[in-house]
Amino acid sequence: MSSNATEILTVTEAAEARRSIRKYEPAPIPRGDLEEILRVTSLAPSPWNVQPWRFVIVEDADTKAKLQAAAYGQPQIGAAPAVIVMYSDMTNALETIEETIHPGMPDHAKAAADIRATFAGMSETDRHAWGFAEANIGLGFLLLTAQAHGYSTSPMLGFAPDAVKELLSLPADVRIPALIAIGRGAEDGFPHHRHNVQRIARFV
Amino acid sequence: MSSNATEILTVTEAAEARRSIRKYEPAPIPRGDLEEILRVTSLAPSPWNVQPWRFVIVEDADTKAKLQAAAYGQPQIGAAPAVIVMYSDMTNALETIEETIHPGMPDHAKAAADIRATFAGMSETDRHAWGFAEANIGLGFLLLTAQAHGYSTSPMLGFAPDAVKELLSLPADVRIPALIAIGRGAEDGFPHHRHNVQRIARFV
Repeated sequence: MSSNATEILTVTEAAEARRSIRKYEPAPIPRGDLEEILRVTSLAPSPWNVQPWRFVIVEDADTKAKLQAAAYGQPQIGAAPAVIVMYSDMTNALETIEETIHPGMPDHAKAAADIRATFAGMSETDRHAWGFAEANIGLGFLLLTAQAHGYSTSPMLGFAPDAVKELLSLPADVRIPALIAIGRGAEDGFPHHRHNVQRIARFV
Repeated sequence: MSSNATEILTVTEAAEARRSIRKYEPAPIPRGDLEEILRVTSLAPSPWNVQPWRFVIVEDADTKAKLQAAAYGQPQIGAAPAVIVMYSDMTNALETIEETIHPGMPDHAKAAADIRATFAGMSETDRHAWGFAEANIGLGFLLLTAQAHGYSTSPMLGFAPDAVKELLSLPADVRIPALIAIGRGAEDGFPHHRHNVQRIARFV
């Protein structure tokens, strides 16, 4: 499959096609494909346009081996050509709020002060939990975008956060929604098995 | 625009087109469209296929007015023909785990016991936070899916959770990632203003 494929899947096709995949073709992912997937991911919404998500893309074999060790040896980390470490960084997001306030907002200095005051009124735990939740919305975007470009993914929650942060020199106060193995899939994965909509939705 | 539109947007088109919209055409959304959006949303992944997300779709005018009051009067609730209250319900998800364990798993009784033991080993707070994070991944799917079907959305975090739960008779221990106003948009919204990928991503 060409990495320059112009066939981007629809949202429905991507959601239908997506599986958690643990075996991958070893070929590296073209940098342009990874950047495009992250660009589309970064279009996810966040209140006040705060955009708390950040990414480290691990492709180096030695670093990937250490990351695998920090994730209890999960084999898809070694198998995938790249692993995306997605994290939320509220400290950096608030430090750089002037970059993200929308140009359409009337008074940027006041908006920045108001946003900082809102977050200053939260506990540190709540503030980081807020960024973490927003980053998970972005993770939904990332999984669909990768699939739309023909890449399989395996999001992993099983890892030692402190070990991952130390390995990648991340600040201690960031939060990591998932490590995401990504590459061209080399297995079919399980077909979907989901609740019926009638089971999980109620109309009033 | 026809509600039976066969033109589903690609993931990239949907992400590019999505804005937070506060003004909507008042026409009701065909039930089939809402069910299809929730079906595709429910294809989001979750560890052990737990699927903690649940939905109440509020269309009734009186209930919508009360929901608006519980969300500090935000006008998009009144303006949109429907508001989706998305919540995570770990208690229900774990009670019904036999429904969600994948048919491809070898020993369902052991799998159910293992999953329940894993969550029993967490604090109640951590367990509900886990379901909340997964539901936020689903929220990313929902926003893209709605847009792919031509519907605008406005996810809202500003509401009194206890008042929303009481209004909709939801269990006290569920968590609500967002209220999502949905409908055909009647304004353009702000164009995207995002960090460059180079600002938020690092390759190692």
